[in-house]
Amino acid sequence: MIKTAIMGFGTVGSGVYEIIRDMTSADAAGDEIEVKYILDIRDFDNEEIKPLLTKNFDDILNDNDVKIAAEVMGGLHPAYEFTKQLLEQGKSVVTSNKELVATYGPELLEIAKKNNAMYLFEASVGGGIPIIRPMTVCTKANDIMAVAGILNGTTNFILNEMFTKGKDFTEALSDAQAKGYAEKNPAADVEGHDACRKLAILASMAWGKYVNYNDIPTCGITDITSRDVAYAEKMSSVIKLIGYAKMNEEGKIYASVSPMIVSEENILSDVNGVFNAVMIHGNYLGDAVFYGKGAGKLPTASAVVADILDCSRHIDVKKHNILWECSDENIIADSNEQTLTFLVRCTDSCENIENIFDEVEFVSLFNDETAFVIRNVKRGKLNAGLEKINGVIHALGVLDFI
Amino acid sequence: MIKTAIMGFGTVGSGVYEIIRDMTSADAAGDEIEVKYILDIRDFDNEEIKPLLTKNFDDILNDNDVKIAAEVMGGLHPAYEFTKQLLEQGKSVVTSNKELVATYGPELLEIAKKNNAMYLFEASVGGGIPIIRPMTVCTKANDIMAVAGILNGTTNFILNEMFTKGKDFTEALSDAQAKGYAEKNPAADVEGHDACRKLAILASMAWGKYVNYNDIPTCGITDITSRDVAYAEKMSSVIKLIGYAKMNEEGKIYASVSPMIVSEENILSDVNGVFNAVMIHGNYLGDAVFYGKGAGKLPTASAVVADILDCSRHIDVKKHNILWECSDENIIADSNEQTLTFLVRCTDSCENIENIFDEVEFVSLFNDETAFVIRNVKRGKLNAGLEKINGVIHALGVLDFI
Repeated sequence: MIKTAIMGFGTVGSGVYEIIRDMTSADAAGDEIEVKYILDIRDFDNEEIKPLLTKNFDDILNDNDVKIAAEVMGGLHPAYEFTKQLLEQGKSVVTSNKELVATYGPELLEIAKKNNAMYLFEASVGGGIPIIRPMTVCTKANDIMAVAGILNGTTNFILNEMFTKGKDFTEALSDAQAKGYAEKNPAADVEGHDACRKLAILASMAWGKYVNYNDIPTCGITDITSRDVAYAEKMSSVIKLIGYAKMNEEGKIYASVSPMIVSEENILSDVNGVFNAVMIHGNYLGDAVFYGKGAGKLPTASAVVADILDCSRHIDVKKHNILWECSDENIIADSNEQTLTFLVRCTDSCENIENIFDEVEFVSLFNDETAFVIRNVKRGKLNAGLEKINGVIHALGVLDFI
Repeated sequence: MIKTAIMGFGTVGSGVYEIIRDMTSADAAGDEIEVKYILDIRDFDNEEIKPLLTKNFDDILNDNDVKIAAEVMGGLHPAYEFTKQLLEQGKSVVTSNKELVATYGPELLEIAKKNNAMYLFEASVGGGIPIIRPMTVCTKANDIMAVAGILNGTTNFILNEMFTKGKDFTEALSDAQAKGYAEKNPAADVEGHDACRKLAILASMAWGKYVNYNDIPTCGITDITSRDVAYAEKMSSVIKLIGYAKMNEEGKIYASVSPMIVSEENILSDVNGVFNAVMIHGNYLGDAVFYGKGAGKLPTASAVVADILDCSRHIDVKKHNILWECSDENIIADSNEQTLTFLVRCTDSCENIENIFDEVEFVSLFNDETAFVIRNVKRGKLNAGLEKINGVIHALGVLDFI
């Protein structure tokens, strides 16, 4: 019987506890796990968990019986210090804490490797959907060329409502809040920061090099209006908040989080509601997609438990840990060099636009503005041209996955 | 350096060889593998592989250096005998041979477990898409409630052409053959036998009980006509060849391979061309989908190589092997008890139909036939009613995934 500790008894933590308690699958019988501690600074009036509760982290750290801890407390501190100390003791740690993984991943992975412990974080991206582990497997036999994901359920719900029900952003956001999909302060979701941390983790996984989320250009969906919806529909497309990363020939990574136009031909266009999906392109595999619920107590907790079971099956054996290489040099490629197709909205005249850009296709929809598609242009060149154009509203990239 | 053998130098086998030869990913550096033998009864005029070629299986069996073999020869014999002997020697075997896994899976898994070897078959379902491994992980922390998959690229391509280009079955099949997606004798694909074997493997994985593919009611797509396409479109749906399995309350499994009506709301409706996808429903996870290319030399070979790498990382440690329980009793549930929604086409009058079935919704499209939707009816009850109806063309189930 492998003893484990749950650190943080919030939504995910209580889900982890319940799943382990109720685990009945015959398959799991061979590697039974038991919760020995639940760490939380709060008091709980729950007779069942009372014997397990502790407010003292050292109880877990110093108990040789505890081989695995689930860090589901969230936030950077003290999650970082706790994780580090546990790994230094050779205890494995699994987590759903994307912020911690995206910030301290390289160091924690290195400490895990040094101490033959595991640091697993399937639940940090895409909730319960198996993404990190399949990616690890794919990257063993494939070079990953690009990753594109719908990584945030809240924004996907909002955009989906705008497309299917004609709501504007504010109304769709209110509905998301009413349904509990969006928080009172929705900034982390709608401004793309949540998706950005997840993309940083995926890109780090894909290429084994630490991608700092602070270096990823990030734009949310707050500027998307019903007019953008109309243009996208005219282009047989939808708009999705896409986390995108691609390695270029120099071994640098183009990475961005932004609302993008996604053709109906691309299966990511069919990811609706609060669902998440990650598309990867492997040199041998081609495109593969992992799809499912990106959040929620039990989906996320089931991913944490799967990681705990993985650790429990690798107690006392040499681990094959991954590392995220850190470099002083910025590994994010200059986004001005990235070639993409764009939809541009502005209030300038067609003549002016044609004077500045060689080949554009106009999309006529509204009398008081002009829109055009410009294909395969470097972002830097586009931006330089846009400086000479009047009344630029915005430019949306078109997802062109490999 | 772990030595491996490739048994069968056909399409997949040569892909496995090429990927291992070209493997450069930094991640793989820690567990380098090397091909020591290529087993094939044919001669090859290829200087590069000549030193590795053998026609004698005993060379591999008796070489203590060889820890892992890739069985990519296909067919039941001698693949079965070779695999069994290797596993009995404690050598791990990985395979893309769905027929062998679906037929002898339980015995081979048991031999693997007894001898602390691994028997892995990620490439047997869904080509290169990671499905088997994510399912193994999911089943650790979830009870799987149901599985539904588009498991055959050829039939998916044909149905897709019928829907998007208005072709009839024969024309779409010819095009598939011209493109190399369908074989000259397309029976195994279009009659559903290929999908049936893959579904048997998925169902066995999902519940740890061996599902014999001979027990799965299987119907192909040869009867699907442009009229079915028209009805499906009227229902905002498409038709897909679906492998479906669901556990009922008595612990028996409803399983079938048949063309089903799939609503546009279901993401499986968006799986086009030769792509495959598997949807699973876990009690905690909810719906998750794995999507990608279900066939092809390099996608499939990359899954074989990923399995080889998995074995190489677990040499000399105790394996946590899965088993497929075998039972004398048929574990396939009586399909007459399964409740589904159906679209029925016939030439009887509406009056007669309404006399026989309580509640039906008529779908009027053609003057010379009658079609109706009947919701949530047991298949047995439907069939009994259909016996009293004149000129039944066919009944198509509607996929209602959980």
